[in-house]
Amino acid sequence: MSGSTFGHLFCVTNFGESHGPAIGCVIDGCPPGLPLAESDIQPDLDRRRPGTSRHVTQRNEADRVEILSGVYEGVTTGTPIALLIRNTDQRSRDYANLLDTFRPGHADYSYWRKYGLRDPRGGGRASARLTAPMVAAGAVAKKWLHERHGTRFVGWMSQIGDITIPFVDEAQIAQNPFFAPDAAIVPQLEAYMDALRKSGDSCGARITVTAQRVPTGLGEPLFDKLDADIAYAMMGINAVKGVEIGSGFGVVTQKGSEHGDELSPEGFRSNHAGGVLGGISTGQDLVVSIAVKPTSSIRLPRASIDRQLQPTTVETHGRHDPCVGIRATPIAEAMLALVVMDHALRQRAQCGDVSVAVPPIAGAAPGSPRG
Amino acid sequence: MSGSTFGHLFCVTNFGESHGPAIGCVIDGCPPGLPLAESDIQPDLDRRRPGTSRHVTQRNEADRVEILSGVYEGVTTGTPIALLIRNTDQRSRDYANLLDTFRPGHADYSYWRKYGLRDPRGGGRASARLTAPMVAAGAVAKKWLHERHGTRFVGWMSQIGDITIPFVDEAQIAQNPFFAPDAAIVPQLEAYMDALRKSGDSCGARITVTAQRVPTGLGEPLFDKLDADIAYAMMGINAVKGVEIGSGFGVVTQKGSEHGDELSPEGFRSNHAGGVLGGISTGQDLVVSIAVKPTSSIRLPRASIDRQLQPTTVETHGRHDPCVGIRATPIAEAMLALVVMDHALRQRAQCGDVSVAVPPIAGAAPGSPRG
Amino acid sequence: MSGSTFGHLFCVTNFGESHGPAIGCVIDGCPPGLPLAESDIQPDLDRRRPGTSRHVTQRNEADRVEILSGVYEGVTTGTPIALLIRNTDQRSRDYANLLDTFRPGHADYSYWRKYGLRDPRGGGRASARLTAPMVAAGAVAKKWLHERHGTRFVGWMSQIGDITIPFVDEAQIAQNPFFAPDAAIVPQLEAYMDALRKSGDSCGARITVTAQRVPTGLGEPLFDKLDADIAYAMMGINAVKGVEIGSGFGVVTQKGSEHGDELSPEGFRSNHAGGVLGGISTGQDLVVSIAVKPTSSIRLPRASIDRQLQPTTVETHGRHDPCVGIRATPIAEAMLALVVMDHALRQRAQCGDVSVAVPPIAGAAPGSPRG
Amino acid sequence: MSGSTFGHLFCVTNFGESHGPAIGCVIDGCPPGLPLAESDIQPDLDRRRPGTSRHVTQRNEADRVEILSGVYEGVTTGTPIALLIRNTDQRSRDYANLLDTFRPGHADYSYWRKYGLRDPRGGGRASARLTAPMVAAGAVAKKWLHERHGTRFVGWMSQIGDITIPFVDEAQIAQNPFFAPDAAIVPQLEAYMDALRKSGDSCGARITVTAQRVPTGLGEPLFDKLDADIAYAMMGINAVKGVEIGSGFGVVTQKGSEHGDELSPEGFRSNHAGGVLGGISTGQDLVVSIAVKPTSSIRLPRASIDRQLQPTTVETHGRHDPCVGIRATPIAEAMLALVVMDHALRQRAQCGDVSVAVPPIAGAAPGSPRG
Repeated sequence: MSGSTFGHLFCVTNFGESHGPAIGCVIDGCPPGLPLAESDIQPDLDRRRPGTSRHVTQRNEADRVEILSGVYEGVTTGTPIALLIRNTDQRSRDYANLLDTFRPGHADYSYWRKYGLRDPRGGGRASARLTAPMVAAGAVAKKWLHERHGTRFVGWMSQIGDITIPFVDEAQIAQNPFFAPDAAIVPQLEAYMDALRKSGDSCGARITVTAQRVPTGLGEPLFDKLDADIAYAMMGINAVKGVEIGSGFGVVTQKGSEHGDELSPEGFRSNHAGGVLGGISTGQDLVVSIAVKPTSSIRLPRASIDRQLQPTTVETHGRHDPCVGIRATPIAEAMLALVVMDHALRQRAQCGDVSVAVPPIAGAAPGSPRG
Repeated sequence: MSGSTFGHLFCVTNFGESHGPAIGCVIDGCPPGLPLAESDIQPDLDRRRPGTSRHVTQRNEADRVEILSGVYEGVTTGTPIALLIRNTDQRSRDYANLLDTFRPGHADYSYWRKYGLRDPRGGGRASARLTAPMVAAGAVAKKWLHERHGTRFVGWMSQIGDITIPFVDEAQIAQNPFFAPDAAIVPQLEAYMDALRKSGDSCGARITVTAQRVPTGLGEPLFDKLDADIAYAMMGINAVKGVEIGSGFGVVTQKGSEHGDELSPEGFRSNHAGGVLGGISTGQDLVVSIAVKPTSSIRLPRASIDRQLQPTTVETHGRHDPCVGIRATPIAEAMLALVVMDHALRQRAQCGDVSVAVPPIAGAAPGSPRG
Repeated sequence: MSGSTFGHLFCVTNFGESHGPAIGCVIDGCPPGLPLAESDIQPDLDRRRPGTSRHVTQRNEADRVEILSGVYEGVTTGTPIALLIRNTDQRSRDYANLLDTFRPGHADYSYWRKYGLRDPRGGGRASARLTAPMVAAGAVAKKWLHERHGTRFVGWMSQIGDITIPFVDEAQIAQNPFFAPDAAIVPQLEAYMDALRKSGDSCGARITVTAQRVPTGLGEPLFDKLDADIAYAMMGINAVKGVEIGSGFGVVTQKGSEHGDELSPEGFRSNHAGGVLGGISTGQDLVVSIAVKPTSSIRLPRASIDRQLQPTTVETHGRHDPCVGIRATPIAEAMLALVVMDHALRQRAQCGDVSVAVPPIAGAAPGSPRG
Repeated sequence: MSGSTFGHLFCVTNFGESHGPAIGCVIDGCPPGLPLAESDIQPDLDRRRPGTSRHVTQRNEADRVEILSGVYEGVTTGTPIALLIRNTDQRSRDYANLLDTFRPGHADYSYWRKYGLRDPRGGGRASARLTAPMVAAGAVAKKWLHERHGTRFVGWMSQIGDITIPFVDEAQIAQNPFFAPDAAIVPQLEAYMDALRKSGDSCGARITVTAQRVPTGLGEPLFDKLDADIAYAMMGINAVKGVEIGSGFGVVTQKGSEHGDELSPEGFRSNHAGGVLGGISTGQDLVVSIAVKPTSSIRLPRASIDRQLQPTTVETHGRHDPCVGIRATPIAEAMLALVVMDHALRQRAQCGDVSVAVPPIAGAAPGSPRG
């Protein structure tokens, strides 16, 4: 419980730093008998990896994953699955000056206060590079959930800076580097990003992530509510500053007569709840939205201090994402999958004998946030 | 880890149902030697308890807390502190019809799917009444944190329905039933609530909660980030659908040059981060905002189904808060205190030997969200 | 995880002190739908409670258990089951002198070093009285395991001081205050205990506890091995100094050709393993043996020191068990039941889909330690 | 908590199988600022590794450890330390027949029942080879404990088969392949082992492990007692069937007047307690003894069954330790170090402010079991 292990039954322990020899994770608790190979994991890693368009960091990492354990003759054995990703493009350069100053908006100052020292190379442990092993682990969770329950995870960018991106078509998400569900808006996004990069600044984004065909009954009533664990998972992603379930902050101005999703024999008539009532999944789509802050490493000069608390100025050059939100989509999907997976196992542990006489009612209604 | 225990080192195990004989909690891991009596806990319980104004539920519960263990001769012994609150105003009435239908927006349906049965009396375990023991536990955490670090927790209502409440003066929060930091707006709030109650509907709210003089270095870098644990705690409060840290969803439209808080020898120049960088506390004020959905139990008729999935209509009479957000302020404070407390202990476990040559820089700048 | 919660999925959080107002526990994670009433729990509490014969402490506690939550209309709801036992026979007397000296063999000194203070009344938290809530929780686990898997737990005293007690007949265990499976030896045990009590001294004991019809496949391969968790549970019982599984320390002088239990289509031919291979249950009887040290509170004078580390002499009068091992049998059964219960839930969480084409082979062979 | 992570604050997550590409572990929660290099870890690995004498398995593994993360410029950063050990001598041979039969005394049958499948190569996850990463992690714990508290861990073989090994001199332990603290007895041990190997059989052993200069106050009062966690750690080592603290099973025949260790201003007068009272360390030496069963893989033919539950006979050839107890000494030391380390961090988390006016009294008296 020292902060690098995620989950209670499907446990993922993450290790590594941005510029160390390797990053990776150990997945403990995976059900046995799941067919699994590197090729099940690599596609999601490829969606997240850097260097794939001019709008993300130009660091060139293949992010090739190696399964070190837990798989025998092509199926999981139920014992820990260790995944290793070697770092290959750690540029050797002098980080000594970085060690002495604190970049505004960065973890430099807080790490130093916490540990008394820090690994400055590429952000060390604070780097978003550490999300790669989570994407890998999420791919395993996704596969089991899909085979066992038919669950699907779909995420997309719903806003970048001031540009709201409409949900036009899921099929378009994979066809542009922004994970935008609207092909028509892509040129506008590209122009926006090009201007931003030129200015030396960065911007924020909003990502929406959903899960379909989620088993009912997932989540514990009091603390490990499904939505609480989702909030924990999402807020733990680098740069995330806000999390919403269903209508999210929209509920502040809703009336009860508007918010509470009515039920019919055909299913819920709306999905303001985002798939969770009382912390427990209803079988509707999970709908989650996150706010990703603008990248802290920018070329524009910022006021700061050094380790002697003396004033200084910081400009950050090098390879950085001008909008870290762009690559956040597969990460958010993976984290949502890990939460659902963990609760699917927890649910059958305690309630494996529960049976209810009637089938679950249908999932998301046309009026759902995803609709 | 079955969902009723909160925290890793300062662990609070909650039990009870709305209409059972008692509710309560067990606090395990409290440092020894803290002077503690019921009178340290009761004031926060009184802030949360029902029946204190016409704008909240009229259920009449004294919420008297009894310390059953863990305190000897007026100080904590380091062993579990059991707190018991007897339920006294469980109205006996027939819940049989409730058992058969599912109130829109309520946990009725999801509990039934999860457990195959449920305690329908007053919402059973899903009742917001279960936040009372957390408020009690939070009072213990607050006391230790204040004595040891000078930490203070201040929460308030920042919006109700469409009415935004300006932060005028902390002293005014305690002087009205809305926890509004602006005395002048109270008549408007009262009129709004009276009309709402008359209409049989309910409304949402936004609560802001802050912590001042938080030790630096709290939070684990990857998963148990301080903000991730705050999000988990807040989203776990009944009816919460959104959580923000610092600028929250405002970051989507911020530029990096605006968002990243600059540092000076006198401290941070702003607090968009909300007191957390890289998941670790900086020593600035923690600033958290939550969205509380409108109460699901309303008098207006709603479409629903019964346990045979047949259509029906639900109207909920009885004693309910027309805006559950009103009483959420002391709850949110308590949950924030529990998170900070847990991390304060975790921090000295791992980093108890860390010392940095210079003192922490000053906390929130004038431009902070709380400012 | 602050040391007062037992189990991972079937979690029991224990609270209270020997002479506080009450002791009790919260069981979280119990499967829903189990018929449960106080009358299911009280019989095991009665087997453990003090004052039932002249060979145990004369403290008079009814140990009446009250279910505060988690049960609705006679069945478990899946939410926390809080159990409360009021202390009724805390004699008021002056413990001030006790506070200043350290009884040899007692936790007085170590508690003081740990916490800087301690509750001296009746041993405070270190009292074996705190096993009562575990016996209560164990009764719940026993009931579920019996209904779901037919599992039975049987414990007995196998040695007291120098007297080895043969296993004659399980039916005799309940018919004497020693939990001896041999009626014929009881007069000898009574004479031994009467002489011991007269001498002002105390003695040790060995308890054997078994579980029959344990599901196969329980236990995790590396750390949470079933036998490792049993050892943890047993060594955690007050006064226990040794734990054996199956042949236990007998294995030191066994050869591999003797120890390894051969298999046949009818089942294992012996049970040197005690029902566990590689940390995982085989379906044979679990066989566990524990060593209980002699009571530390004796009338004979012992050398000690006071809080200023000055020499002093301690004699302990008052109500004490001359052999704490006598009442350890129901406690050991309960702890074993809690371990098996927790692993039964863990097993179906991860391996709920596993099926093997052939039925488990038969359990304990005639040559097993339980014979 | 899926069984491959050890510890609560100093957490070690273990992965790998005997014949997979690699084994290793991730240490999370190590205090920052500890100087650490592979050379701090390798010596303990070398003490455990196979192939170092004719009395252990002839598998030839260098067991070279690589630090993948968590160390920057020669000191720990406080973030996860990943340790990797590549397997190099996995002999390729046909395990197909092994897959179909169950070796008596082995985990073959129980793994199959649990998971429905298993990795048969060299025992897969059940192999004692998985103790290597624990020895590596233990070396890190030992180093921190020694630098911070002066704690030392010393283990030795105290019995092999029928031969009791006297404690003559600690210095002799490292000078023979048996970890025997008596050089004079080594020829007898060698003759015994040679005869055993020739016979195709195996034998058991008893290992004693101690810790000196252990901080006082370690251990939680109820469940995570220091001795309970030690029992858990020790019983979790492959082939261990019994654990004793201090006098262990000797307490059964002790009187209270003999067992309870008297105190004097100079310290405890004996150490029957083995360094733990009420589950909390007293500052005396920890003294632990374990029983290691004879190796299950022997050349002598044994009756067994196959996966269709049909009778068969098993003879195990290949490379095996005739007494797995021989290499258990560094493993037991490492596991004890991990328990003490975890509790040292837990203790300062909760009781970091506790101070007692007088210094701890001296440790083990001459009459201690180790004496």
